[in-house]
Amino acid sequence: MRPVEFDVTYESRNTWARLGTLKTNHGVTQTPVFMPVGTQATVKATSPRELVEVGAHIILANTYHLYLRPGHRLVEESGGLHRFMAWNRSILTDSGGFQVFSLGDLRKITEEGVAFRSHLDGSKHFISPEVSMEIQMALGADIAMAFDECAPYPADYQYTKDSTLLTSRWARRCQAAHTREEQALFGIVQGGMYADLRKQSADDLVSLDFPGYGIGGLSVGEPKELMYELLEVTVPHLPKEKPRYLMGVGSPDCLIEGVSRGIDMFDCVLPTRIARHGTVFTRNGTMTIRNAAYSRDFIPIEPECECYTCQHFSRAYIRHLLNTGEILGVRLTTIHNLHFLLRLMEEIREHIAGDTLPEFRTTFLGQYYGGEI
Amino acid sequence: MRPVEFDVTYESRNTWARLGTLKTNHGVTQTPVFMPVGTQATVKATSPRELVEVGAHIILANTYHLYLRPGHRLVEESGGLHRFMAWNRSILTDSGGFQVFSLGDLRKITEEGVAFRSHLDGSKHFISPEVSMEIQMALGADIAMAFDECAPYPADYQYTKDSTLLTSRWARRCQAAHTREEQALFGIVQGGMYADLRKQSADDLVSLDFPGYGIGGLSVGEPKELMYELLEVTVPHLPKEKPRYLMGVGSPDCLIEGVSRGIDMFDCVLPTRIARHGTVFTRNGTMTIRNAAYSRDFIPIEPECECYTCQHFSRAYIRHLLNTGEILGVRLTTIHNLHFLLRLMEEIREHIAGDTLPEFRTTFLGQYYGGEI
Repeated sequence: MRPVEFDVTYESRNTWARLGTLKTNHGVTQTPVFMPVGTQATVKATSPRELVEVGAHIILANTYHLYLRPGHRLVEESGGLHRFMAWNRSILTDSGGFQVFSLGDLRKITEEGVAFRSHLDGSKHFISPEVSMEIQMALGADIAMAFDECAPYPADYQYTKDSTLLTSRWARRCQAAHTREEQALFGIVQGGMYADLRKQSADDLVSLDFPGYGIGGLSVGEPKELMYELLEVTVPHLPKEKPRYLMGVGSPDCLIEGVSRGIDMFDCVLPTRIARHGTVFTRNGTMTIRNAAYSRDFIPIEPECECYTCQHFSRAYIRHLLNTGEILGVRLTTIHNLHFLLRLMEEIREHIAGDTLPEFRTTFLGQYYGGEI
Repeated sequence: MRPVEFDVTYESRNTWARLGTLKTNHGVTQTPVFMPVGTQATVKATSPRELVEVGAHIILANTYHLYLRPGHRLVEESGGLHRFMAWNRSILTDSGGFQVFSLGDLRKITEEGVAFRSHLDGSKHFISPEVSMEIQMALGADIAMAFDECAPYPADYQYTKDSTLLTSRWARRCQAAHTREEQALFGIVQGGMYADLRKQSADDLVSLDFPGYGIGGLSVGEPKELMYELLEVTVPHLPKEKPRYLMGVGSPDCLIEGVSRGIDMFDCVLPTRIARHGTVFTRNGTMTIRNAAYSRDFIPIEPECECYTCQHFSRAYIRHLLNTGEILGVRLTTIHNLHFLLRLMEEIREHIAGDTLPEFRTTFLGQYYGGEI
């Protein structure tokens, strides 16, 4: 079997959404799917069994961070990332590109690759397409991502064009360097905010026949409407039979809008990050549970929610834990937020199957934005 | 039924140890028992179901901390401490005395009670025996503790004598003020490092006929041998049919020595506190898992251990989590340490039943102190 098998099982009649199954050596994932982010080989504040309980079937880990600590060779020695972190479902690693480019003044890009200094200790490093493949093969996730340049926002046409072409050349080098048979390598479409460059990037990558395609360089500061437009000009150039992964996107509205435009996979630190700051998702919008308003509020975050948090604990208790710096507080908000998004994806899949996604979009977003935020 | 029923089910033939059952409205606990400490209505880094999994049947919560945050009235409004923290097994609250006396310059003791300033914001407060009862009744644990003065170490004879007599007078006031029928109130024996004062304190307290007795003011800096001697002069003055609780003690050696001298209950922050600093218990002594020596050590903390941590994760992974500040690291060390101590208590009970506690003591302590510490 190929390392990843993707099957489209249903195509929506009234949107570009579709249902699918993504099979790896570590199980089957229903798509569209949201992947929680486990940057340093742990989805912050959670244990693997809690991830299973909230319904996660595939998670993401960050190549850049694991390369620095504990080092990809150590992870390989331990038996690979699945065994290291005791997660026996699917894993995708990013390429390290986005993190390295985010270092700003600490990095320098050449045709060969990117020289940079570690954000931890300033030590010098160099990642090229070949090095990124070496690291990701050692980590041993089910899916690796090609090493790309993520252009900043805003960026002018010429910069973006050069960057997009560089990403295409790097994609070819990644493909040549990637030799791990039990791991799939996805390409990444760039092209910044320019429709013609998005098309060119998609065409370049598709010609290399990757088993899946990331769409990178979006959700980098541009208006959401622009992101949706760029999805609409990009997705039609990607093959129907391959999974499409919108990278770094995970707010409830973007998930629904992305799915409606044909996206199958998402990842984002949003649910876990806001949880650590005491903000939780509800159907009526986000709730800042640290607020004094909740100090004597003895009902769950969402009384109907089936997550461990809402089945056992009150807003007042969670607020107390957050205010006193107790670890359980962040654990409980994280579980709720992940459950919320993964449950939302489940509902989205149900509504694709029933051809009711547009109605659900209207109802959900109306209720969500009528809320506190 | 009385709020707490204690039955001695077996008396050791070769030590002062005994087996017993402690029944409350929230279940049955086998004694001797170790109680994990949930200072702020959470045993740090754990969830209630993890506490159940490691075998905890009764935990301790701190009156002083809960009085300050979130406030006892809020806990009462929420339905009491069990409901607030979603823990439906037994709970014991301390009196607040030890914490208040630990404030040093921030507190002043009179016959009436203790005036002190909060360690959080310097605000002024006053706790008397009556106030401590009011707080503990509002919290609603199964067992409340009398408000005592814990004399510092070292303290001269006269200071200790005055303090011990004050504790006896306060115990009487606690008993008068305590009116919550579904809650038991235990007295606390003081007497510092003086055998005759320990005897006097025990006699005073026993004359008040509490349903159980704490032994306070030990493990405050004195040599362990002195603590054991003082237990030997105190325990014989306590009624056989009532539980004896050695407060604030929980190292493996002290648990074995305490049980051998007739102690039925213990509590201590040690296992959870050292876990947060990356130190774990093993049969061969404590292990500082942050050490570089464990960076490529891919076996569990204790390969034979049945805790969630040892069943899934390697020393190298836990070290990585601790070194990168990931919450899961502290969660995993905490689970292991609590499981270790609660499993140790289970073994101790088995060896009491088999009259082999002295042999177990020799074997266990020999192995434990032959280790790293």
